[in-house]
Amino acid sequence: MIIIGFDPGSRYCGYGLLQIESRKVLAAGCDVIDVTRGKTLALRLKSLYENIMQILEEYHPEIAAVESIFFHRQVRSIFTLGHSRGVILLALAMQEIPVVEYSPREIKKSVCGNGNASKQQVRYMINQLYPLKESPKRDDAFDALAVATCHYNRMKWLQ
Amino acid sequence: MIIIGFDPGSRYCGYGLLQIESRKVLAAGCDVIDVTRGKTLALRLKSLYENIMQILEEYHPEIAAVESIFFHRQVRSIFTLGHSRGVILLALAMQEIPVVEYSPREIKKSVCGNGNASKQQVRYMINQLYPLKESPKRDDAFDALAVATCHYNRMKWLQ
Repeated sequence: MIIIGFDPGSRYCGYGLLQIESRKVLAAGCDVIDVTRGKTLALRLKSLYENIMQILEEYHPEIAAVESIFFHRQVRSIFTLGHSRGVILLALAMQEIPVVEYSPREIKKSVCGNGNASKQQVRYMINQLYPLKESPKRDDAFDALAVATCHYNRMKWLQ
Repeated sequence: MIIIGFDPGSRYCGYGLLQIESRKVLAAGCDVIDVTRGKTLALRLKSLYENIMQILEEYHPEIAAVESIFFHRQVRSIFTLGHSRGVILLALAMQEIPVVEYSPREIKKSVCGNGNASKQQVRYMINQLYPLKESPKRDDAFDALAVATCHYNRMKWLQ
């Protein structure tokens, strides 16, 4: 099965794919979608939607794990983030892919054993877990793999 | 030409259509889309998207006016609102309909002559401007016609 993880941001949307075969887990890919391209917010959202639909059609994930949001960030960036997140959830619903949500704290705790782990720790752990051919340039891609890993760990516990 | 106005809310999304023929302006329709139906947020957004696409395909508006957001409301409701608004803007971009945004203050000032006008005043003015066959049940539908009216008034000034 394939799990897709999303780390939505107001500038970059990270995504990461985990392929699970019996007890073997591989990172099937991870990258970021640049959400800043496009003249208007509506066109930027269209580009995000089309990128996500392309990824979903290519990999056919069975489930999606999406990071839920801090509520102590800047109100304006939460608002922009809400727009991107709405489009991600819509694309998943259009492809009938169920969605689970995890808080940043749950994700860090699951991957690093510490809910307050730094970006660097998450990056280090993801590099330890999955030998990536090409290291992603942005942390958002590592974070997306961390979201997917958090769901995989939860699945193992529930089995 | 047809102008569509949107008043996005976390529970109801109001929409209203103005048909302009030379100097005659008619309300071609207004209603609300219930955004609370659906088991998950993703499914509610899908339903919202499908409803909007149906309206856009039926009326073929040439331009959309969308209410921008207060930033002093509750952070959590702004976040949910951001999701709905993202889906509205996406639907408009998919149909290649240009979007203009107006603040609640601009809309009230344009329709009632007072940026602090009450919901009742907006409702009264919309009823005066357009003889509606059936009065909409929810204020959100009146508000959406007010957003479209605000854009129509702006257009008149720019001519």
